[in-house]
Amino acid sequence: MTSSKHNPETERASADECSGEDRLIARFFRPLATDPGAFALTDDAAILAPPAGCDLVLKADAIVGGVHFLADDPADLVAKKALRVNLSDLAAKGAKPLGFLLSLALSPAVGADWLAAFARGLKEDAEHFSCPLYGGDTDRTPGPIMISIAAFGAVPHSTMIKRKGARPGDRVVVTGTIGDAVLGLTLRHDPDAARRLGLDQAMQDYLVGRYRLPQPRNAVAEIMRRYAKASMDVSDGLAGDLAKLCRVSGVNALIEAARVPLSDAVRVALSHDPAQFERLLSGGDDYEVLASVAPDRVAALIAEAAAAGVVVTEIGRIEAGRGRADFLDGEGQPLQFARAAFSHFD
Amino acid sequence: MTSSKHNPETERASADECSGEDRLIARFFRPLATDPGAFALTDDAAILAPPAGCDLVLKADAIVGGVHFLADDPADLVAKKALRVNLSDLAAKGAKPLGFLLSLALSPAVGADWLAAFARGLKEDAEHFSCPLYGGDTDRTPGPIMISIAAFGAVPHSTMIKRKGARPGDRVVVTGTIGDAVLGLTLRHDPDAARRLGLDQAMQDYLVGRYRLPQPRNAVAEIMRRYAKASMDVSDGLAGDLAKLCRVSGVNALIEAARVPLSDAVRVALSHDPAQFERLLSGGDDYEVLASVAPDRVAALIAEAAAAGVVVTEIGRIEAGRGRADFLDGEGQPLQFARAAFSHFD
Repeated sequence: MTSSKHNPETERASADECSGEDRLIARFFRPLATDPGAFALTDDAAILAPPAGCDLVLKADAIVGGVHFLADDPADLVAKKALRVNLSDLAAKGAKPLGFLLSLALSPAVGADWLAAFARGLKEDAEHFSCPLYGGDTDRTPGPIMISIAAFGAVPHSTMIKRKGARPGDRVVVTGTIGDAVLGLTLRHDPDAARRLGLDQAMQDYLVGRYRLPQPRNAVAEIMRRYAKASMDVSDGLAGDLAKLCRVSGVNALIEAARVPLSDAVRVALSHDPAQFERLLSGGDDYEVLASVAPDRVAALIAEAAAAGVVVTEIGRIEAGRGRADFLDGEGQPLQFARAAFSHFD
Repeated sequence: MTSSKHNPETERASADECSGEDRLIARFFRPLATDPGAFALTDDAAILAPPAGCDLVLKADAIVGGVHFLADDPADLVAKKALRVNLSDLAAKGAKPLGFLLSLALSPAVGADWLAAFARGLKEDAEHFSCPLYGGDTDRTPGPIMISIAAFGAVPHSTMIKRKGARPGDRVVVTGTIGDAVLGLTLRHDPDAARRLGLDQAMQDYLVGRYRLPQPRNAVAEIMRRYAKASMDVSDGLAGDLAKLCRVSGVNALIEAARVPLSDAVRVALSHDPAQFERLLSGGDDYEVLASVAPDRVAALIAEAAAAGVVVTEIGRIEAGRGRADFLDGEGQPLQFARAAFSHFD
């Protein structure tokens, strides 16, 4: 981990600060670098020897202040979100986390307090998910904070679950509940939303928490790897992400809208404003796992996942087709959504 | 590679653009994803099976617009610089490049032309250095462009060259020439610098080129792995980087200032302004390889590197000590530098 490649003119003016950055790295980030291959962040690079017989699964995802998190989100939760959006992909691919690299661009306003909280949150998750820090770099930016993480996982050779692989006759399943995060974000932006949607304080806290802190489903990654024929994490909205899985698999999906798993808080919100349903399916930040599974294996998957503490729900089926995902009402008719954007999901 | 995790409220307003981003990824970045493990960027993650018996070498480094490159730098060179700063670390660690992940945050001003040139440059280097794209994500940012790359290389198990390992009696060597980039940056910033430093147009072009486009020494990575006891790339200035290597190795370095390799252009500049010498040693962006080598192996290293097209120069020796790097004048006395910053390198 290095304080990296500054414009020499900038460096000239801020050599003290760079040295301060080195100290910050040692103080805050070295405790996360628990693997010997990270050399306690004193080298330019790290080494990782993947487990024998395994492929390395690679994923990079960044979050940007004001875009993926809000300026007043607590720094420890920002750190966790940055790591978890990557862990969620590893979970959906059936991979066991091995570690990550961090590129951190800090805006001028960021001080030691923010960084301390950020590092504390990151350390808690690195330990919880057995995903230590291997290195990275810190930079200053005149723009918003940006946190780029590259995460590594392992799967037995040639067993990564791909998006491609759903076949007609498969069932579509999803973990957890859908739409919590998008309503949580609405609550952050719209002071009147809680009243309008009939949400008490506990429900508001739950929904905002689901926006701020994804719950990646790494607990069922190994189970998914054994059961799923195709899989991805739901991060850009169930409808759009399912359509992506269908396109690359060369199939259609028919989803029974009433079976999409919803939290109690979302059900209350829907009872006050049924039109929100479309947003639940198109909003992002769910970080659940969406998969296609052979019909005779769904019950066993649901049982094993439940034993691992994760609810898996069957929501529909795969049919022959060319990449369309339809949501059916109680009469079996496709729901018509107002959003033009849905045309892009066809 | 995905257009990633947008604030759902943002996504709502820009679903067309997201779809456009997917098209851009397919159009510009898919051609770089030549390894089957990248799944043509149609999955959430990639797989990489490192060569048998090898450790994976991991490195992440980001560059930020206005900090590490200038707004009017050509996009293809920006792309190459972003990759090369990482390739330089792989070279210094003795690693063969395997591939990279890209997180790209695009400012509002970035259009398809910039992106096309960026992708063209990146493709040229991915091919030239046999380092294909495995995935990543694109985001929008209200701030400057930020390009975060995580690069992967391979070394035979347990043979990565570390910063730690320099021993008293070793010789210090460095590839290429030092100080070109910092003068190149000066020329970009200061319209009068060329006249003052006596640099003709060809020399100016050479120096600015060295700032814009690092020449990572991957051609000698394997040679360095066989000869060097400790190694790192020079990216934050020779003096400071050598001090880092000395600190972690628990030694001192004594460098003969007159032996530091300089380009003809830098020699001309120094003849007009000898005080520039300090800047050459403290300025960043050299991207040369600095190493310690047993004294009886220096000549063979220099010969092998020359055969690979890279000049390696012996510049000094390692002695017992605690992390100090001194530059000696013709009388063997340590040069006294004006910059307070040098105190941080002791």
